[in-house]
Amino acid sequence: MELLTASIITIGDELLIGQVIDTNSAWMAQQLNLAGISVSRRVAVGDEWNAIWTALDQEMERADIVLITGGLGPTADDITKPLLCEYFGGKLVTDPGVLAHVTNLFENVYKRPMIERNARQAEVPDVARVLHNANGTAPGMWFEKNNKVVVSLPGVPHEMKGLMTGEVIPQLLKQFNPPIILHRTLLTAGIGESFLAERINQFEINLPSFIKLAYLPSYGMVRLRLSASGYDKKNIEDIINEQFILLQEQVADVLVTNKDESMDQLVANLLLKYGQTLSTAESCTGGYIAQLLTAAAGSSRYYLGSIVSYANQVKKELLKVSEKTLESVGAVSEETAVQMVKGALASLKTNYAIATSGIMGPGGGSEEKPVGTVWVAVGNNSEIITRKFNFRFDRRRNIELTATNALNLLRIFIISQSSGKN
Amino acid sequence: MELLTASIITIGDELLIGQVIDTNSAWMAQQLNLAGISVSRRVAVGDEWNAIWTALDQEMERADIVLITGGLGPTADDITKPLLCEYFGGKLVTDPGVLAHVTNLFENVYKRPMIERNARQAEVPDVARVLHNANGTAPGMWFEKNNKVVVSLPGVPHEMKGLMTGEVIPQLLKQFNPPIILHRTLLTAGIGESFLAERINQFEINLPSFIKLAYLPSYGMVRLRLSASGYDKKNIEDIINEQFILLQEQVADVLVTNKDESMDQLVANLLLKYGQTLSTAESCTGGYIAQLLTAAAGSSRYYLGSIVSYANQVKKELLKVSEKTLESVGAVSEETAVQMVKGALASLKTNYAIATSGIMGPGGGSEEKPVGTVWVAVGNNSEIITRKFNFRFDRRRNIELTATNALNLLRIFIISQSSGKN
Repeated sequence: MELLTASIITIGDELLIGQVIDTNSAWMAQQLNLAGISVSRRVAVGDEWNAIWTALDQEMERADIVLITGGLGPTADDITKPLLCEYFGGKLVTDPGVLAHVTNLFENVYKRPMIERNARQAEVPDVARVLHNANGTAPGMWFEKNNKVVVSLPGVPHEMKGLMTGEVIPQLLKQFNPPIILHRTLLTAGIGESFLAERINQFEINLPSFIKLAYLPSYGMVRLRLSASGYDKKNIEDIINEQFILLQEQVADVLVTNKDESMDQLVANLLLKYGQTLSTAESCTGGYIAQLLTAAAGSSRYYLGSIVSYANQVKKELLKVSEKTLESVGAVSEETAVQMVKGALASLKTNYAIATSGIMGPGGGSEEKPVGTVWVAVGNNSEIITRKFNFRFDRRRNIELTATNALNLLRIFIISQSSGKN
Repeated sequence: MELLTASIITIGDELLIGQVIDTNSAWMAQQLNLAGISVSRRVAVGDEWNAIWTALDQEMERADIVLITGGLGPTADDITKPLLCEYFGGKLVTDPGVLAHVTNLFENVYKRPMIERNARQAEVPDVARVLHNANGTAPGMWFEKNNKVVVSLPGVPHEMKGLMTGEVIPQLLKQFNPPIILHRTLLTAGIGESFLAERINQFEINLPSFIKLAYLPSYGMVRLRLSASGYDKKNIEDIINEQFILLQEQVADVLVTNKDESMDQLVANLLLKYGQTLSTAESCTGGYIAQLLTAAAGSSRYYLGSIVSYANQVKKELLKVSEKTLESVGAVSEETAVQMVKGALASLKTNYAIATSGIMGPGGGSEEKPVGTVWVAVGNNSEIITRKFNFRFDRRRNIELTATNALNLLRIFIISQSSGKN
């Protein structure tokens, strides 16, 4: 079966000197996959005429659809628009609809005078179909050549996203009739990638050829993903579901979830299910767990807040960790973590609380407590459980690992506390 | 002048379905640029033989150096090693040094039994030079063909980073004699990209041909970057410095910093300079500012903690925001933000405090207070200043914009309070 394929080209010198992390491509790839369009390559090039031209040539040769982001801003390092104009043999003309939109944005939304440079955003190649950018001044542009579609989008994430959802995906679905791509993802914890692979080796060998298995290590856990594609939706859905059940049986004892959801979503769903609330007392994670939970809209229904007690003084005064404990066993200890949970439960008045205390590095380690030593405690007013971790990574990753594993410990605790209530 | 160029190939289906954001490439690009090696392209392909082979062919044609990450794990979806072996015409042999290293890791560090699959990590193509991976089991591999260098690295970030810093960069510098690439970056605030471009248009026209100017919009502010390359270090340094001084003069009234540093670093440096401390009281940013500040090692010297008061109850009880204020003008108000600053100063006992309260979306907006309405207050025990923002983006970006602008407001406040003390 011939899959409908897309390439994504991102343009910008900032990508090549590493000043910016490309988050657009990942999001675009997700949306395309959901629409049944398989992304075969992603390419990043600089703001340079030949590099962009070559990338366009190469990607058009291989893919049915080429999506370009970036290189459309109002400043002089942006050369994408004239290039596309020449590439597709058109000339730049002012689009009255875009001009009216840009003028309106400056007059009524930005409330700033519009200058010549802004007005030029309304110039588009006369061989392009204009895609309306509700969130900004640079329009999307749709080109066709040799039965291939090339779409140019601004690089500003929310502008690109609005155009993808509102214009690009619907128009691609209309023009092509893509096969269905289905994914089934589960998460395991407590088993290494190699051991997991040994265990499900025979399962993998027996998979139908149109189903692929991928291992995705994720914060010390392993995600497994089955992917299948085809035109007969009912048929591939039946087969992938059947295989997914087999896979779940193979990993039943280490299964965390059979959905493609993050640890914070899992915890959020449990709290919502039981109508319970959570607070955190964070030392080494420094608010990372709080921002992870509050990144979800509606999180105020189950997450009330955090005391980020980075300094010991804050642990003592706001969480009532005893001076004696801090002096005798130190802040990175089981006792401190337990007292932090108690302090959070008392002052934030929630059903559950999570506490973290550890040494994230690169400095601050000792022989007894090397960098990566972390105590996590989770509990409610009747019980508190603790766990010690020894992470071996850099600061950033140690923080992420602590957060994910603390949430996992709470997940296990909530389930154990709620068993029989369901 | 011929620049030494590199391409980065990242391998993994997870990149093409958007399950993972590629942070490796950005970091690698930074390191290569610092070493005088210009990155010309970044390509992501799936775990698929032909796709990897074609990418290797294409990138080797164009670049002097090709760096590959990913596709080296112990599981079956990894095909990079056999492919590289065939591509460079070698055969897989067990490297005794790598085998000893892997065995030691399992016995003494992971403390888990080693299985056949792990031992196979010690197999390397006999045409490759092995690069020691101190942080994991998959070795780096160095290949040469037609005067080009191809290096394969594991995709796990801290393993890749250790190999880049310890092996790849030093060996590339030894083998090639790359030109110097210099960047000078400054940050402006309070002026749009188009206006800035108008203002410095003549400056840009007058730049020597080997110096490039780039505009990098950054959280509602604009970063400007000059880049120059050449072999005569003294000469290009003199010229780029001269041009950078001219550029700073052009934007003196809107200049935030003439270094390539983030807003949280700027604030951290000011606090360290004056020996002062900071706390935060975060509602709408939900701990985002706290985790941003504590992401830096050593932040405990100036950052003591946060009260993440996501629920109004927490605002009242821990920050002493008055019931009356919350009832009359609501949580998203100037008065609440001011009281939150006072509450943080009182309970966290710091020199300065930042407070945020706003509606991040997508829900929760009203006609009077639409999504994106944010009140920020910053201050110390003698003075508190406030600012209202109206952001128009998605939840994630509204949070990031609030954090950056709150830190910028504090930066301005600290400078105003400290003028004359210097």
